[in-house]
Amino acid sequence: MDQQAKSLEVQSVELTFPSGWRRSHDCGSLRLDHSGQNVVLMGWVQRRRDHGGLIFVDLRDREGITQIVFDPQADAAAHEAAHALRSEYVIAVQGTVRQRPEGMANPKLKTGDIEVLVYALKILNVAKTPPFLIEDDTEVSESVRLKYRYLDLRRPVMQAHLRLRHRAAFLTRNYFAERGFIEVETPVLTKSTPEGARDYLVPSRVNPGKFYALPQSPQLFKQLLMVAGLERYMQIVKCFRDEDLRADRQPEFTQLDLEMSFIEEEDIYELIEGWLSILFKDLLGLELSTPFLRLSYRDALNRYGTDRPDLRFGLELTDLTDLVKGCDFRVFREAVERGGLVKSLRLADGARLSRKDLDDLVHYAQEFGAKGMAWAKLQPDGWQSPIAKFLDPSLRDAIVDRMQGRPGDILFFMADHPTVVHETLGNVRTRLAQQLDLIPKGQYRFCWITHFPLLEWNPDEKRYVAVHHPFTSPLEEDMDFLESDPLKVRSRAYDLVLNGTEIGGGSIRIHREDVQKKIFGVLGIGDQEARDKFGFLLDALQYGAPPHGGIAFGFDRLIMLMTGATSIRDVIAFPKTQKATCLMSGAPSEPDVNQLLELCIRVDKEGR
Amino acid sequence: MDQQAKSLEVQSVELTFPSGWRRSHDCGSLRLDHSGQNVVLMGWVQRRRDHGGLIFVDLRDREGITQIVFDPQADAAAHEAAHALRSEYVIAVQGTVRQRPEGMANPKLKTGDIEVLVYALKILNVAKTPPFLIEDDTEVSESVRLKYRYLDLRRPVMQAHLRLRHRAAFLTRNYFAERGFIEVETPVLTKSTPEGARDYLVPSRVNPGKFYALPQSPQLFKQLLMVAGLERYMQIVKCFRDEDLRADRQPEFTQLDLEMSFIEEEDIYELIEGWLSILFKDLLGLELSTPFLRLSYRDALNRYGTDRPDLRFGLELTDLTDLVKGCDFRVFREAVERGGLVKSLRLADGARLSRKDLDDLVHYAQEFGAKGMAWAKLQPDGWQSPIAKFLDPSLRDAIVDRMQGRPGDILFFMADHPTVVHETLGNVRTRLAQQLDLIPKGQYRFCWITHFPLLEWNPDEKRYVAVHHPFTSPLEEDMDFLESDPLKVRSRAYDLVLNGTEIGGGSIRIHREDVQKKIFGVLGIGDQEARDKFGFLLDALQYGAPPHGGIAFGFDRLIMLMTGATSIRDVIAFPKTQKATCLMSGAPSEPDVNQLLELCIRVDKEGR
Repeated sequence: MDQQAKSLEVQSVELTFPSGWRRSHDCGSLRLDHSGQNVVLMGWVQRRRDHGGLIFVDLRDREGITQIVFDPQADAAAHEAAHALRSEYVIAVQGTVRQRPEGMANPKLKTGDIEVLVYALKILNVAKTPPFLIEDDTEVSESVRLKYRYLDLRRPVMQAHLRLRHRAAFLTRNYFAERGFIEVETPVLTKSTPEGARDYLVPSRVNPGKFYALPQSPQLFKQLLMVAGLERYMQIVKCFRDEDLRADRQPEFTQLDLEMSFIEEEDIYELIEGWLSILFKDLLGLELSTPFLRLSYRDALNRYGTDRPDLRFGLELTDLTDLVKGCDFRVFREAVERGGLVKSLRLADGARLSRKDLDDLVHYAQEFGAKGMAWAKLQPDGWQSPIAKFLDPSLRDAIVDRMQGRPGDILFFMADHPTVVHETLGNVRTRLAQQLDLIPKGQYRFCWITHFPLLEWNPDEKRYVAVHHPFTSPLEEDMDFLESDPLKVRSRAYDLVLNGTEIGGGSIRIHREDVQKKIFGVLGIGDQEARDKFGFLLDALQYGAPPHGGIAFGFDRLIMLMTGATSIRDVIAFPKTQKATCLMSGAPSEPDVNQLLELCIRVDKEGR
Repeated sequence: MDQQAKSLEVQSVELTFPSGWRRSHDCGSLRLDHSGQNVVLMGWVQRRRDHGGLIFVDLRDREGITQIVFDPQADAAAHEAAHALRSEYVIAVQGTVRQRPEGMANPKLKTGDIEVLVYALKILNVAKTPPFLIEDDTEVSESVRLKYRYLDLRRPVMQAHLRLRHRAAFLTRNYFAERGFIEVETPVLTKSTPEGARDYLVPSRVNPGKFYALPQSPQLFKQLLMVAGLERYMQIVKCFRDEDLRADRQPEFTQLDLEMSFIEEEDIYELIEGWLSILFKDLLGLELSTPFLRLSYRDALNRYGTDRPDLRFGLELTDLTDLVKGCDFRVFREAVERGGLVKSLRLADGARLSRKDLDDLVHYAQEFGAKGMAWAKLQPDGWQSPIAKFLDPSLRDAIVDRMQGRPGDILFFMADHPTVVHETLGNVRTRLAQQLDLIPKGQYRFCWITHFPLLEWNPDEKRYVAVHHPFTSPLEEDMDFLESDPLKVRSRAYDLVLNGTEIGGGSIRIHREDVQKKIFGVLGIGDQEARDKFGFLLDALQYGAPPHGGIAFGFDRLIMLMTGATSIRDVIAFPKTQKATCLMSGAPSEPDVNQLLELCIRVDKEGR
């Protein structure tokens, strides 16, 4: 703190809020109409300029910025005191609104036509020079922003994120309350849930040696609320997963969680489409077109190589397996013989890609386990392609025909196990769209993915595991495959995908105890294990559980997509780093020895 | 499950919700007007009666009960299937609404004028006989209710609690959103906060040996949001305290938390009074009279013996110290000489209390550390009292005069240290009111308690501790006593008391770093300790913190008082017992050994 500020602190900084001063307006609301009015404003000094014997201050509060002027003619004491003002000082002023002088209006500010001539000033607090400018485009590392989060959140862009998030939650609660949903708080200190990620544990002092788990989701509780006859439950709720923090995850995250009784899939789809339509209309001014597209898991994989397709652009995959079966080209032929697929992707006007671009793409493809990726540039005079010579001209023509290829296009080919073909071409598809800027801005393309497989084979554990969770209902028409061919059983699960990101997922649940037991059996969960882990759910299913289903949305991610933020950390007030630490508070931290003693636990770093 | 149910399960229970069946009405909405309409209802069998060849079922859903009738003339198959129905079976029916026969209407039911003649039945699930009746007045221990919470919550009274709670939260969010408050989610995995109770700790796997703490309140975060310029923050938020569970506490509880900048006490009072007025009007149909009464801490203690006075009845304490000073009665005289008080409480028409009643009261008084409590029945011919003989007639007259005593009244006297006098007479006052049924039903009497002392002396730790928390602002006019006479300093804290229960509390905070440091000094919190615990708050106060203050309400307790429930467990969906366990899920439970290994902690019950 500089000397001037120090002396000021003693002399004239208010100890308490000046009694009787009441804010008349915020800093975003004054217009020419207010000219001549006496006003009281409060806020932070954005900047101070001294010019022609006057002192100009941009005063900022959460609603905007207003220019205030200190003129010794208007009030000598206020003008004198204003010399002490620095950036981020907190002040209250009384003054008169007036039109700015000819040519001095600032069209970038909502209040740019006026200024306030001050006749009384109170300094409410002083401020050190902040470590970065309180402006939207501040050049500073994220770690400094996180350490000084209380300053970072002063930036208008961050305040806008928090306000949009608030309004989204508010609209969400309104929407569901209007439709008879009851928000019920489920416990945070609870028992392990079966979501599959690691639980955060909480030692119990009263029950030494026992631990609570923080919920990965309220899945069991919301099903129990259906058994309890609540019929329509919703909650915006914190959930916890102790995952290795890849990419853009947080140890605690927020979920919109809901569950309904006496419904089927269409009821959920309609409800959610109505909800998102209201959010997007109110917050972004966009009309969503409903119903959203629906794609079966199988179709999504076949056409886009992924169950999270980005539908803002085409570049669909085409199956060539039947065409190339038994052809001379060994790579294609053998892939088909081994039960694999041969698929292709056509990039219109892709012939402009350089040889280096193509090499990079092939390397990229190899990251997903592909042995290689072939390509062919379609020239007016035929194929330019390393594999052209292996393919009969008639086969080449048949391929171009099916691909609807034109001169100037480029075709990419993958021949491998279906999983590898889809994952690779799916990612190549997205990468091409990004690289060539094929993704239109400001578009939101939703799609429901349905009819997921119920089970997948886990080679490590040598057993079937649930693709979603063990309470997901199988499709009635596939029930007979449960014993004969479990991988063929489709589930009644559904995901909602937005622009290539899964934003929500849910299912119709099993409501019959006998079916739930049968599924546990297929999953290799023995009677004892089922009883230990989910005994209370199995009990509940015996006492008259209604048919029910639900869905959950990652609220942070949805808000991120709606604000255009690049990280969920930018839409969370106090987020953690990838190492799960809070740079501001220093959490987690070393506990007091006595605390651990009381909890009957010891730290033992050797044991690991 | 009985044999009939078992065979039914195989034969006719629906595996999935019957496609194409859509509920047309709920079970609470059909009236005579609907006669002749075809309807689809779904719900639970409340009871079945067979009478005159017909089968009557009371069908229950969350909105009410409707009588449905199976008549072999209407549909033989449905009538046949209905023989299988038992209590709590889940069914769907299609039928026609008709007026009940003459004299069969049930005025206790909203739908009591009609019944539904069924022409199609689907059994959606079977049910074992529940361990208790699904009715409001069910006679069963709380532990059985908690174990089968999903059945307990089916009872209409419990559903009404959850619905009122939901609506209260909804109205609360609306009220504050309309006034510019932004709901911001603060972290659950955080650092110890200074509320003084024990923290729940969460070991970090990624940072071995370090622990998060679950928040006892978002106190620091909401102050940081004010530094961040958010100006108006609110949140309905879970908080956690690992207390020894006395009476009616829960390890996790819900708080309405809010904070505002640029305000003083009156702004908070007005805001909260408006909020509660809306809640009570909407949910209970009651008009609260505002502004609420305000009592200083000192006045509350003097008049009611407590800072949580129940104002639904009188029985105020009267100070006699000046009257009895130097009197002949040793007990009174010496109490005054030792700096104590002599106070009295007059119970009108109290002379009807028996000698046994009085003995019980004296024993009760002794529970609070009183050596004894004297009494005097005022008879037409003078005092009937064990102490009458020690007091001059003129002193007795002066006492009766000050107490406005009349024949038939009884006076109680305490002479002791002020703390003992107040605590004892305060509790005697409440007990008398309960015992003699002096508390009017259905009244809600609010009162603000203000001007608490800032500090109290902790004889164990031999230091001053904050009565509220260390961020509470001292009263400006008392600042000078901070060094000279710290116990004399009053704070800017306030509590809201309803019918003798504290439902909310808050304060204007310290916003100047120099004042905060001075308070830490008086509290004996050294620079290093302050930096370790609250360094980020001290830092934040240096960068332009606005004047701010806030309040927090115990939401569970408020809902309990509004519903008339006798325990907060009855307004929480899945509460824990006094031993902090969940009887339904079995939480907390023994963890997997590998989980502890990964967390680098070991259970060590010997250490304690």
